[in-house]
Amino acid sequence: MIRIVAAARMTTGDKGPRLRTVPEGDNRARLVCPDCDYIAYENPKVVVGVVATWEDKLLMCRRAIEPRRGFWTLPAGFMEIGEHPEEGAAREAWEEARAELEIVDMLAVYSLRHISQLQLFYRAKLLSPKVSAGPESEEVGLFDFDALPAEELAFPSVHWAIRHFQEARGAASFRPFGNPTGDTGRMTHGR
Amino acid sequence: MIRIVAAARMTTGDKGPRLRTVPEGDNRARLVCPDCDYIAYENPKVVVGVVATWEDKLLMCRRAIEPRRGFWTLPAGFMEIGEHPEEGAAREAWEEARAELEIVDMLAVYSLRHISQLQLFYRAKLLSPKVSAGPESEEVGLFDFDALPAEELAFPSVHWAIRHFQEARGAASFRPFGNPTGDTGRMTHGR
Repeated sequence: MIRIVAAARMTTGDKGPRLRTVPEGDNRARLVCPDCDYIAYENPKVVVGVVATWEDKLLMCRRAIEPRRGFWTLPAGFMEIGEHPEEGAAREAWEEARAELEIVDMLAVYSLRHISQLQLFYRAKLLSPKVSAGPESEEVGLFDFDALPAEELAFPSVHWAIRHFQEARGAASFRPFGNPTGDTGRMTHGR
Repeated sequence: MIRIVAAARMTTGDKGPRLRTVPEGDNRARLVCPDCDYIAYENPKVVVGVVATWEDKLLMCRRAIEPRRGFWTLPAGFMEIGEHPEEGAAREAWEEARAELEIVDMLAVYSLRHISQLQLFYRAKLLSPKVSAGPESEEVGLFDFDALPAEELAFPSVHWAIRHFQEARGAASFRPFGNPTGDTGRMTHGR
């Protein structure tokens, strides 16, 4: 979660981009480094993840890192330069759960405006039930859908993606889901 | 197109983030400022745009800026911090074509890996045929689909989105389109 450290530095540090001003030719404030005029454009980041199953079991990871260390999540992380979103989702599944899988289709596009994330979740099929914890996971597991660690899910969008996956399974066809109506995905106590 | 100026500075300048190195705790090279250790994470950017119609006419803009100045495009641009993608798409339609519209649904998600863009196009209905050029457009127009400036389109993904829009119109239901198979969206002569 190095990004969070960097974000904190941008607003509180005394080095690097820290001056909020409208650059010439632009129409909104950006973070600028007053020492060298470097402009740090802040754009939303893309998070890519998978709802991956082996037979009828769901792959989940218990987080070894903050935020929400110890809580259960779906394999997901920041899309990197030079990859397609499906590739990023599969890479995250490997990094966090040593899972090999095949992407099936796009399940959902969630917009978490308060943390400037656009999250893309894909349905995926594991190629084998052989999974194990990567460095960012304390443990990984394959769960029956009626025995998920439902009280210990890390983030609202993990709830959403699991629910939408189950809705999609019962549907002849579906379009990618979005945020549940009116739900910003902001963390509230108990979720 | 300030972003391009900034990108050039990042690789050629003698100030700001310009050292490519793997930060502690990370697993890939990032651009770091050797003067203040600021890390400039480069993630893919999200571009949001619209295929917007008034009755049976398509809204297009002739670009007043590089790249591809003078060529025709769909209203689209970088998603900004703090907005949902649909809001960003509508904002771009206003900025580039002074168009007011209602977003209908997601048409396509294209991945342009060579320029690190994830492009989301939405279908939209104009609320009025009253459109006019914003500062980044030389002119705007409402075109019959059989009279599009097909030889003067700015980018491959403009071709794709228009084609996919027409495919979607004839379909009872559809899922968001992706890149045409095997097409990276890299610019080639004549497109």
